[in-house]
Amino acid sequence: MERIADAADPRLADYRELRDAAARRRIEGDEFFIAEGPTSIERLLASDHRVRSVLVSEQKYERLADLLDPLDAPTYVVDKALLRHIVGFDLHRGAIAAADRRPLPDLAHVLATSRRVAVLEGLNDPENLGAIARSARALGVDAFVLDPTCIDPYTRRTVRVSMGEILFLPSCRVDAAMWPGAALDAMHDAGFETWAMTPADDAVDIWSLDVPDRLAIVLGAEGPGLERRTMASTTRRVRLPIRSDVDSLNVGNAAAVSFAITNRP
Amino acid sequence: MERIADAADPRLADYRELRDAAARRRIEGDEFFIAEGPTSIERLLASDHRVRSVLVSEQKYERLADLLDPLDAPTYVVDKALLRHIVGFDLHRGAIAAADRRPLPDLAHVLATSRRVAVLEGLNDPENLGAIARSARALGVDAFVLDPTCIDPYTRRTVRVSMGEILFLPSCRVDAAMWPGAALDAMHDAGFETWAMTPADDAVDIWSLDVPDRLAIVLGAEGPGLERRTMASTTRRVRLPIRSDVDSLNVGNAAAVSFAITNRP
Repeated sequence: MERIADAADPRLADYRELRDAAARRRIEGDEFFIAEGPTSIERLLASDHRVRSVLVSEQKYERLADLLDPLDAPTYVVDKALLRHIVGFDLHRGAIAAADRRPLPDLAHVLATSRRVAVLEGLNDPENLGAIARSARALGVDAFVLDPTCIDPYTRRTVRVSMGEILFLPSCRVDAAMWPGAALDAMHDAGFETWAMTPADDAVDIWSLDVPDRLAIVLGAEGPGLERRTMASTTRRVRLPIRSDVDSLNVGNAAAVSFAITNRP
Repeated sequence: MERIADAADPRLADYRELRDAAARRRIEGDEFFIAEGPTSIERLLASDHRVRSVLVSEQKYERLADLLDPLDAPTYVVDKALLRHIVGFDLHRGAIAAADRRPLPDLAHVLATSRRVAVLEGLNDPENLGAIARSARALGVDAFVLDPTCIDPYTRRTVRVSMGEILFLPSCRVDAAMWPGAALDAMHDAGFETWAMTPADDAVDIWSLDVPDRLAIVLGAEGPGLERRTMASTTRRVRLPIRSDVDSLNVGNAAAVSFAITNRP
């Protein structure tokens, strides 16, 4: 454990200005990601990502010492005001860690090692992506396949809202040349059915379908939903039955309900 | 349609300072609630709440005129800067409405007119409550029963996140004297089973249970979950099966998945 009192200390470089606007300007060059709060940090330590360091307030260090002291990476302890000054906002949970990114797996690897995948198109809300990662992990999904426009899955808020579960979910990114046709074809060639989730009345009721051995649940962003081209390249269009005068479920709930139903005993 | 250019115009009183901190100071005395954005306003107009007025930007009025002109309540049109000045934040959707609250129904009425209810304890996040209202309506829940500590279901952000669906979901509030024992007893007397949702390993797997004709799904807040006393007064403790190394689902997803599974064909 190393106490730091100087805001300019270079050991704090990973933690400077983490607010989203600042983070977005920087993200392309980042070699690392941030996990916030005791739960996400605990999950980070349980994962096989290499931790660079942990930064905690004095108070939080007292509570987390048993977790942090055995760690093969430095723990920096600062006072609360300095913590706020460095990260640029009020870090209620008082604990934050930086860890190395790893190269994302490619689609072939994901398809060879998974039975259930969630395919996400145009998901650009970090909290939605984090919530979907948490329910995907909980409900039997093995990996994410992200279209070229989805947000970075290692975004700070995504890691936080996922409660660190995104760190256990292999996520591959399909490039623009392969999306959607070639990527969905590759899934079909690997033995996957692809189900395009939609609230459209003429889609097939999810409860009426047998769940195949290999399944990709394909979800679009709240509002626009899936692109027509994407929908046309999937095995079938599938709907969750909802009350007729309700427009739709939010995308996080639609994902969780789809994952749960296709994971039924 | 009435154009207003003066920020001090008394017709704008319902819309002043709607940010949460200001709203919380006022909420006890409110006789009305706020619906934001075209979707919520459309749902408000389809409901049987009495609309007091609608406030829109010039731009938005062009798009909503067909909806608003037949309305038996005034539409006030202001420019964007004035709209922001009045409500106290950037109202991206450019449209907001005020409507009269109605007295909440009592528990006996809710139990006599429902087959599926969601019972919520300690839910104090307005967005969680709104998300649960949207999925409850979509997935066959007829009413909410709220413990004494749940947030006001007509909170602005709750109405917005529910996409206006909370306005179609009768919600009753149980007072402290009745919570939890007497309220849960009343449900049992009315023929309801009460299922306390918990991630505990020794609870019954939801998929193994027959869904009774009358069912109350009982959910606690993210983190603390249900009070021990509440859990002990229910018919049984029920869990959603999740991957063993994942802690839990978030409360919104746990609610949606529970509603969907108990609404299966």
